[in-house]
Amino acid sequence: MDGAYTLLFRAEGHEDRTVIVSGDESLLDAAKRAEIPLDAPCSGNGTCGKCRVRVISGEAESEPGRHISREEYAQGFRLACASRARSDMVVLVPPSGLAYQSRIKISEGEREQAVFSALREELRALGFTGDSGLETLSITLPRPDPENPMADRERLLSALEKHRGEGAPPLRLSLHAQRKLPAALREADFSVTCVLARGAGEDRILNLFPRNAPDPVLGGLAIDIGTTSVSILLFDLPTGEPLALGSAGNGQIRYGADVINRIIESSRPGGLERLQRAVIEECIAPLIRALCKKGGIGPESIYRAAVAANTTMTHLFLAVNPAYLRLEPYVPAFFEGETLRGSETGLGLHPDAEVTTAPGIGSYVGGDITAGVFSSGVYKKEALSLLIDLGTNGELVFGNADFLMSCACSAGPAFEGGDISCGMRATDGAVEACGVDRETMEPALRIIGPAGQKPGGFCGSGLIDLIGELFRCGIINARGKFIREGPRVRRDEWGMASYIAAFAGETETRRDLALTEGDIDNFIRAKGAIFSAIRTMLVSLDLTVDVIEEVYIAGGIGSGINVENAIRIGMFPNLPLERYHYIGNSSLSGAYAMAGSRGAAQKVTEISRGMTYLELSSHPGYMDEFVAACFLPHTDGSLFERGGEGG
Amino acid sequence: MDGAYTLLFRAEGHEDRTVIVSGDESLLDAAKRAEIPLDAPCSGNGTCGKCRVRVISGEAESEPGRHISREEYAQGFRLACASRARSDMVVLVPPSGLAYQSRIKISEGEREQAVFSALREELRALGFTGDSGLETLSITLPRPDPENPMADRERLLSALEKHRGEGAPPLRLSLHAQRKLPAALREADFSVTCVLARGAGEDRILNLFPRNAPDPVLGGLAIDIGTTSVSILLFDLPTGEPLALGSAGNGQIRYGADVINRIIESSRPGGLERLQRAVIEECIAPLIRALCKKGGIGPESIYRAAVAANTTMTHLFLAVNPAYLRLEPYVPAFFEGETLRGSETGLGLHPDAEVTTAPGIGSYVGGDITAGVFSSGVYKKEALSLLIDLGTNGELVFGNADFLMSCACSAGPAFEGGDISCGMRATDGAVEACGVDRETMEPALRIIGPAGQKPGGFCGSGLIDLIGELFRCGIINARGKFIREGPRVRRDEWGMASYIAAFAGETETRRDLALTEGDIDNFIRAKGAIFSAIRTMLVSLDLTVDVIEEVYIAGGIGSGINVENAIRIGMFPNLPLERYHYIGNSSLSGAYAMAGSRGAAQKVTEISRGMTYLELSSHPGYMDEFVAACFLPHTDGSLFERGGEGG
Repeated sequence: MDGAYTLLFRAEGHEDRTVIVSGDESLLDAAKRAEIPLDAPCSGNGTCGKCRVRVISGEAESEPGRHISREEYAQGFRLACASRARSDMVVLVPPSGLAYQSRIKISEGEREQAVFSALREELRALGFTGDSGLETLSITLPRPDPENPMADRERLLSALEKHRGEGAPPLRLSLHAQRKLPAALREADFSVTCVLARGAGEDRILNLFPRNAPDPVLGGLAIDIGTTSVSILLFDLPTGEPLALGSAGNGQIRYGADVINRIIESSRPGGLERLQRAVIEECIAPLIRALCKKGGIGPESIYRAAVAANTTMTHLFLAVNPAYLRLEPYVPAFFEGETLRGSETGLGLHPDAEVTTAPGIGSYVGGDITAGVFSSGVYKKEALSLLIDLGTNGELVFGNADFLMSCACSAGPAFEGGDISCGMRATDGAVEACGVDRETMEPALRIIGPAGQKPGGFCGSGLIDLIGELFRCGIINARGKFIREGPRVRRDEWGMASYIAAFAGETETRRDLALTEGDIDNFIRAKGAIFSAIRTMLVSLDLTVDVIEEVYIAGGIGSGINVENAIRIGMFPNLPLERYHYIGNSSLSGAYAMAGSRGAAQKVTEISRGMTYLELSSHPGYMDEFVAACFLPHTDGSLFERGGEGG
Repeated sequence: MDGAYTLLFRAEGHEDRTVIVSGDESLLDAAKRAEIPLDAPCSGNGTCGKCRVRVISGEAESEPGRHISREEYAQGFRLACASRARSDMVVLVPPSGLAYQSRIKISEGEREQAVFSALREELRALGFTGDSGLETLSITLPRPDPENPMADRERLLSALEKHRGEGAPPLRLSLHAQRKLPAALREADFSVTCVLARGAGEDRILNLFPRNAPDPVLGGLAIDIGTTSVSILLFDLPTGEPLALGSAGNGQIRYGADVINRIIESSRPGGLERLQRAVIEECIAPLIRALCKKGGIGPESIYRAAVAANTTMTHLFLAVNPAYLRLEPYVPAFFEGETLRGSETGLGLHPDAEVTTAPGIGSYVGGDITAGVFSSGVYKKEALSLLIDLGTNGELVFGNADFLMSCACSAGPAFEGGDISCGMRATDGAVEACGVDRETMEPALRIIGPAGQKPGGFCGSGLIDLIGELFRCGIINARGKFIREGPRVRRDEWGMASYIAAFAGETETRRDLALTEGDIDNFIRAKGAIFSAIRTMLVSLDLTVDVIEEVYIAGGIGSGINVENAIRIGMFPNLPLERYHYIGNSSLSGAYAMAGSRGAAQKVTEISRGMTYLELSSHPGYMDEFVAACFLPHTDGSLFERGGEGG
């Protein structure tokens, strides 16, 4: 029953990988060992249905189930998590199984331009403009001759010292610049342009160009590492102008959708390095290369980068053991990461680039939140404000210029489309908004992408809409179960009902785009986690939700979030709609500010030092709040009526 | 005649390498492309005889010559530089062909202990002890608990700040230490020992150990990179105690014996990186690993290293283009190299180790000489002193506490046994001293190594003795030609005579150990270069050689140099013997001082800034001096008689 077999994995865009497996090991576990980026947001529990593979040759022990139809089964499709080899096999990973991890999306960033323009204005107002610590300087040196055979380095430094005058800090030359120096000097008759970095007590020449070359670009990077996906903005440091924006799935997802499973994996032999590779080599570094190509600059022209991420992701980015994050008393290895050099990161930047990480304040409130508090401006508001960051973990910050309290809840990856059979990230093909006709039950979909784009799945905002609409139309009940029948409602052989938002012929995947009761259940738990966290935090301050004057919604949920639907399903408190503001990826915006401005980076650190943290799991009453919130909209329906608590 | 063939090279201790060759390419050139470390100190001119290979299968076009006997030819031996493929071939590189490049020698350093002990005393007297900028510090932290969930990093830093008191510089944590922190803290109940490096304006924690572990070793490295060979000393930074000493051939020798050929090779596509790899990956890094094994420490426990090398070697170590060193006006890319981090060097040291390079003063007087001026003490003598560094380039420094003048001459690798058919480095098996009986012409050899060691070749000091003795006994004349016959003198079929110092049965190589007229010719040119340089430098100061009060002889020539013989052959001026002092590898000693002491490193920089340089090649009269010195002892014999200029 458990012999040793040879498994060959084949996946588009990846080299073939071969592993030896026992009959006890699932094909998913084998794929993990082979470092094949097969999606598995449910960590192999058979619930998400994303680890579909196709058997090309050989035999696997598995059965058809709700994620694999009989017809598909006959074609060789299997769920990798539920299959075990019974012979040598060749296994194909279809593009759909690589969607979360490998697919890099680059955009012009038009949709986000407004966000970054506003942020640039804000930074200007705060005096955080032009303080990246970098400058360029052009200079012409005396030519060497037998009477003046001074070496290139000393020739350059003495000319620069003269030019900069007395009192300027001492100058050093990076190895990168030293290597370029002889050729650069002689290419334009000893006229060069230097990229200078101001430092503590000394300045460094990071790069050199012959003066007749085009003006050097000074690139900056903002990197948001989410548990499910990664977003990166490449921008021009002196002007703050975005050059390219992109996202990719976090390759770590094959080791589990949530941070707990990642931490467990990291404690296995070689696990820490495996997880670091999965996010850096498979995801961040290729994304940076793609952005640089789009932006027309070389990665070695990137001199500043800031990383904003939750505490676990920040640890894994640096390959620092995160084990103690989940062991009492839940202590991170660091709150504030040291500034790193490009060469220490494996990102391919200029070797002396300065790479900072946004500071965290605890095991479950990380740099993504402190960066978000900065970019949302919550830290300087008079109004009592709530920041909601909808990621795989949901994090909340409540407060204003006087105080800031934070907490975290485990929402799971549903808002980013993970753990939802028809879910996907908010990229081309994602349904980002949706209406349903109460009579006909026919849907109207708004899809991200160019005209004619077919739907591929639902991103978070689309899911909120669809579930809100199904509930509004009386198609599903408060428990998320289907209570109307019709051509769009289908029940499978196990009795699970689903709503077909698009039929196979209309979709990108050529499979029905269906929202199942299982998906709705996952989503209800996610929205319940958010709402109960908000309530518990306010209760801990002896407040009710109606004191909240402004709500800032952040996260990769999709830009068109319909707050009315979100309130309808009981995800957000019942406040006047005008109090809600969608601010996009505030973690990325915060990283953008930090990478471009030393002042902004310092401000984020100050914010982090002043924030308090509420541990929900040990807070009495949180579990009851959560259970009560796992209905549509809530067991206490009065909360969502006009005149209820939030009215 | 010039088809394309497949050549497979096989060499002990190396992986097989295959290259495609044309019939025009020599086997030596093919071996270079394949990065097979085949010796070729004469750059493929057919003169040194060191690139012997053995053809296992296939056909090569070549002829027997003076380096390959007919019998050897029949066995498949060929000179790689003089052979071209005529079919697919399998070629074996015998150990003798790898001698210069691959063979690593590790010693207890007993012979050198005296040198380093004296240097330690000297450094103590100069106040250059204990200023490596490193210290260890042990501390116990409060344990984390739910009331005090501070992160590990902040917990450590706040405890250290308290411990160090006000006014101490701010502290940073290296990434290496951050990665070790969580486990180190929990292994000994939050008691740790830190390795601290003092820096400009801030201190850094480089490493961390649980307090119950043995006291951490702080390792330092002195690295002397010669054109022909590399010597490295591993020592304990706090005490200066040597831990292990070793040497290896410089892998670059396959690209030519002298710096000019290396510079030419570096300008070919990929050449700079190839040369850097040849010295770092093939030679320095493996040597460091061997020293660490011997010394019982990990390479990541090395926190300081200093490199002393000639200007070309320093450029190639850093992969900085050396092309302009040999183009008018002979300008290096740098005099003073920036301090590097371990991670920038490829040496496998602690990633934040400080690696310094000794400063050079020109294209042909490099850091090996400025380091040597420091360790010889010439810079602070009252007496007019001459430092002679006998390497592939011969460098001279003349002066005292008031002035220092330097010059360089191209001696070739003869003093290190290169370009001499029976030559080898001063390691086990080398004949380091030798006498010849005037009557019987029988030799008496002193061999480096354990009792019973058979001779393998002659190192520099042995060559001086043998040639001096052959001349003294009237066996060779002033032109280095044999003028006596006997059982030890043999003439080959081309008429070239040689002296058999040991017969095949008595040698390590099982071949006759023979000094040929060609070898003597090479050696005479080397010694002539040295003597004429000394004379020219003094003439330029309007002085004669007899003003020299002290002579310090440095280099890898072998410890037992017989000055009487060196004067007899006209290599050194005819001064009283007691003025001569052999000081070993002064470049290595200087690097040792620099790595262990910031004060010493600063002093070497000051020395370099105060030295002047005499360009011999443009000095009128140097060529005449050189030609006159290419005799035994000199065309002007009076220089070497009592009462001569040097008497």
